[in-house]
Amino acid sequence: MKQDRHVSPSVINRLPRYYRFLRDLLGRGVTRISSKELAELMNVTASQIRQDLNCFGGFGQQGYGYNVELLHKEIGSILGVDRLTPAVLIGAGNLGKTLANQVNLSTRGFRLIGAFDKSPAIIGTDLVGLTVQNIDSLEAFCRRYNPKAAIICIPKEAAAAMAGDLISWGIVGFWNFSSYDFTQNHQGVTAVNVHLGDSVMTLSYLIKHMDGFQEEAETEDDA
Amino acid sequence: MKQDRHVSPSVINRLPRYYRFLRDLLGRGVTRISSKELAELMNVTASQIRQDLNCFGGFGQQGYGYNVELLHKEIGSILGVDRLTPAVLIGAGNLGKTLANQVNLSTRGFRLIGAFDKSPAIIGTDLVGLTVQNIDSLEAFCRRYNPKAAIICIPKEAAAAMAGDLISWGIVGFWNFSSYDFTQNHQGVTAVNVHLGDSVMTLSYLIKHMDGFQEEAETEDDA
Repeated sequence: MKQDRHVSPSVINRLPRYYRFLRDLLGRGVTRISSKELAELMNVTASQIRQDLNCFGGFGQQGYGYNVELLHKEIGSILGVDRLTPAVLIGAGNLGKTLANQVNLSTRGFRLIGAFDKSPAIIGTDLVGLTVQNIDSLEAFCRRYNPKAAIICIPKEAAAAMAGDLISWGIVGFWNFSSYDFTQNHQGVTAVNVHLGDSVMTLSYLIKHMDGFQEEAETEDDA
Repeated sequence: MKQDRHVSPSVINRLPRYYRFLRDLLGRGVTRISSKELAELMNVTASQIRQDLNCFGGFGQQGYGYNVELLHKEIGSILGVDRLTPAVLIGAGNLGKTLANQVNLSTRGFRLIGAFDKSPAIIGTDLVGLTVQNIDSLEAFCRRYNPKAAIICIPKEAAAAMAGDLISWGIVGFWNFSSYDFTQNHQGVTAVNVHLGDSVMTLSYLIKHMDGFQEEAETEDDA
């Protein structure tokens, strides 16, 4: 199934969710599902599912629905989880360690081949079977092993200072937990930015704008 | 400045980014900025900035631009970062500990008042000045201290099993790192979901669909 090269960012952002729900279905032994059932499960409309999947040629059969195993495999292939991109972790402190332990990269399109830090307390420690290396050895490592992706778990200033080097050493994709903007500042690279601080502020907004939400201080004033 | 109650989710998701850029500007001593300059800095269009801020009444002055300090303060107030919602951390393992250490909640609208886990190895340990408590004591804690938000760092099944209780004990907002869907399964609650696994799969897609991206295996086959 050949995918369209001009798929909108929102469709791309939804693909992993389809993949996740299909994996759950597979795990529960479901072999086929209608777009209506899948829509109810995922809390979207059946027409959105059909539209999204049509970007890649569509996979459903009239009157049959979707073959769960096939669709899971096809979406996985579109996401590229079946071809592992070599990746390095930049910054092996708490956040980097947690990500490496928490997220199974090898089922999500990446193979972690190196972890780097500048702190003497962290260099030499184990991280999911890798020995954390001195950041000073990263250039030689990149030239030898050709990682294409980097997981950025260092502060904005450090990320800004390293970005040009990383790109010149062959890194083209960033899973970026810093607030440095790689794609804004450099050509020919791609990034997914995870701003944990932004995300929790969005929750603050949503909570404080809920109907009938009582702020604690107001409750106290009422007493 | 009174905000509109019907603000689109994408505007809400962009607000924390405005807040972050304005904080950076403030830190650099910038006191006023035109929407054009702010747009260039943030890599969006000036008209998007004006439209977004108009949802809340607009803040610019013709020929002057934006007062950075005032706009930062107003957006902070819209986000509710100036009124701290009491929150509990559910699951104080690596991810929970990392979030509590990494993200300064008190500048982002929340006050962490308790941390809970079921593991005897974690209960009793320190977490940003709090002592991790047994999850069994959470109900009594909620009834006494009235937390309104929960940071969910437990697996999907555990989150599903606890969700009803948490809501009945007064939790209305979830910063959710599990793949359990709180808002789909319950009424009258809000959530921001952070799917780390989805986010790295999106990066896999983006890298593998870059123009000219060479998969490693292909490169080897060429040799």
